[in-house]
Amino acid sequence: MAVAFDLDELVGRARDGQHRAIARLISLVEDANPRVADVARALTPFTGNARVIGLTGPPGVGKSTSTSALLTALRAAGKRVGVLAIDPSSPFTGGALLGDRIRMTEHATDPGVFIRSMATRGHLGGLSWATPQAVRVLDAAGFDVVLIETVGVGQSEVDVVKLADTTVVLLAPGMGDGIQAAKAGVLEIADVFVVNKADRPGADATVHDLKQMISLARREIRGPSWRQPIVRTVASTGEGADDLVRALAEHHEWLVTHAELPRRRAARARDEVAAIAMRRLRAELADLRHGDRLAGLADRVVARELDPFAAADALIEDLRR
Amino acid sequence: MAVAFDLDELVGRARDGQHRAIARLISLVEDANPRVADVARALTPFTGNARVIGLTGPPGVGKSTSTSALLTALRAAGKRVGVLAIDPSSPFTGGALLGDRIRMTEHATDPGVFIRSMATRGHLGGLSWATPQAVRVLDAAGFDVVLIETVGVGQSEVDVVKLADTTVVLLAPGMGDGIQAAKAGVLEIADVFVVNKADRPGADATVHDLKQMISLARREIRGPSWRQPIVRTVASTGEGADDLVRALAEHHEWLVTHAELPRRRAARARDEVAAIAMRRLRAELADLRHGDRLAGLADRVVARELDPFAAADALIEDLRR
Repeated sequence: MAVAFDLDELVGRARDGQHRAIARLISLVEDANPRVADVARALTPFTGNARVIGLTGPPGVGKSTSTSALLTALRAAGKRVGVLAIDPSSPFTGGALLGDRIRMTEHATDPGVFIRSMATRGHLGGLSWATPQAVRVLDAAGFDVVLIETVGVGQSEVDVVKLADTTVVLLAPGMGDGIQAAKAGVLEIADVFVVNKADRPGADATVHDLKQMISLARREIRGPSWRQPIVRTVASTGEGADDLVRALAEHHEWLVTHAELPRRRAARARDEVAAIAMRRLRAELADLRHGDRLAGLADRVVARELDPFAAADALIEDLRR
Repeated sequence: MAVAFDLDELVGRARDGQHRAIARLISLVEDANPRVADVARALTPFTGNARVIGLTGPPGVGKSTSTSALLTALRAAGKRVGVLAIDPSSPFTGGALLGDRIRMTEHATDPGVFIRSMATRGHLGGLSWATPQAVRVLDAAGFDVVLIETVGVGQSEVDVVKLADTTVVLLAPGMGDGIQAAKAGVLEIADVFVVNKADRPGADATVHDLKQMISLARREIRGPSWRQPIVRTVASTGEGADDLVRALAEHHEWLVTHAELPRRRAARARDEVAAIAMRRLRAELADLRHGDRLAGLADRVVARELDPFAAADALIEDLRR
């Protein structure tokens, strides 16, 4: 049964910083509620102010602890911070991350912090579709910074870059071939590197390797140059978190100075609009699936009367009718 | 530059068992070559005979070794076998699986075996789109069995079920909470369980846990009942591989007896046709993206003149025009 609610009043309460209203709005957009478009329309006038920062990196580098340490440092600097923790969990890993989430509850009583885990499991395009909706809620609710933390498995670390103004890639010493393996991916996506667990043996070597990778890659880079900084942290003690806050501020400054911020946000809007359009088309296809039309075409494919491409053409023609 | 080729001649050579022709056809469909629909049309009359078996399970259970052992046992039983090894590798894990692949080269000189690794990295819907195309090639080429092995990270273990007649879920002792974590997912998807590394301590306990899970789950299952067997193997020595071949044959028999095989294949055809239709729509959207239309709409979203849902509506209207 649909429960009636006053959207403008809900948005108003979210903008007053009421966590329950913020949570309610995120649930509305996350579940692809039919009113999601109304919610977006109601929020849009209040958006565009939050800095969106993505954190990613391979498993075991301490992403959750780093998010928590960064959160503490940003709070000390007077920023209100929203956190979206993206879990692209599979049937085989589901639930493994609970311990990490629990650690974040140290911020749970702080009204200037809002933390939300978003499970993208089973949602095709879940991250790319639902996350910008949730970012919009936090932006409109007046958070200065929105942190998007990913679990770093699969496609999500690439997707998060598309959503963030600034992408932080975390690495740690003692990951063996980790950096080598990560090389191709992270150089392209990182705006800021963090070498976490910097008190452990091998940290110097990791920083050294990273510096070499960066200087090699720089030869091929075009356009306005941003020198990716490497910040050393020990997230468990908070060491280096202030350095990271400074590096993030410098990158934001650079984005503004070089007109890179509007460029990135326009790219993000293109992705989002395309994702929404795709989802609508997918829903229309699903309607055709539940009808007899797809089933009838599929039966003819099984009977080898029709190849699946010809069947898909027939299905799309129905969609256009 | 496009290279002209004679499709019927290529299909003929593939049906003669020429590996180069088979590989060429898979490359054609994998790369979404413009002629992929022609290839599907040319292959369709020769399809429908191969048994498609999916192998999945969490990392570390020995999937590659098990695939290899099963391959040996199927060859000894006189079957021609095609293998598709699906690597949904991320920027952080890319390349890690090379060692596993190399082990499979022991079958490389056997003309009755064809092995192909398919990287789905970066392909949205890559597995669900490209794999059935590759299965069609192997089916038409006259392989009796097509094995689809997944790396078991992310969404792929769920997708593979949709492609296979029979799904084998591999587990191993000493995985700690692995079985508990896997429980929800694997009970739904497994037709046959394998407990690999059955010579290790804890194998009995793993089999025991699994039996309990199965009998608990059976209470809730509707429809024609298939009792999921548990096969113990030591894939590194080949022990138990013949038992697995027998269990697979029994499941195939059951599928046929209960009219479940045509039901599964019709479901698969529905998924495939829908995936092809979706890909076509996505390509049409991409055309709009590269035009000015999406960029113009996105700029209006950044300027907060338009919310992204209204922009998506406008984009879809263009698509229909």
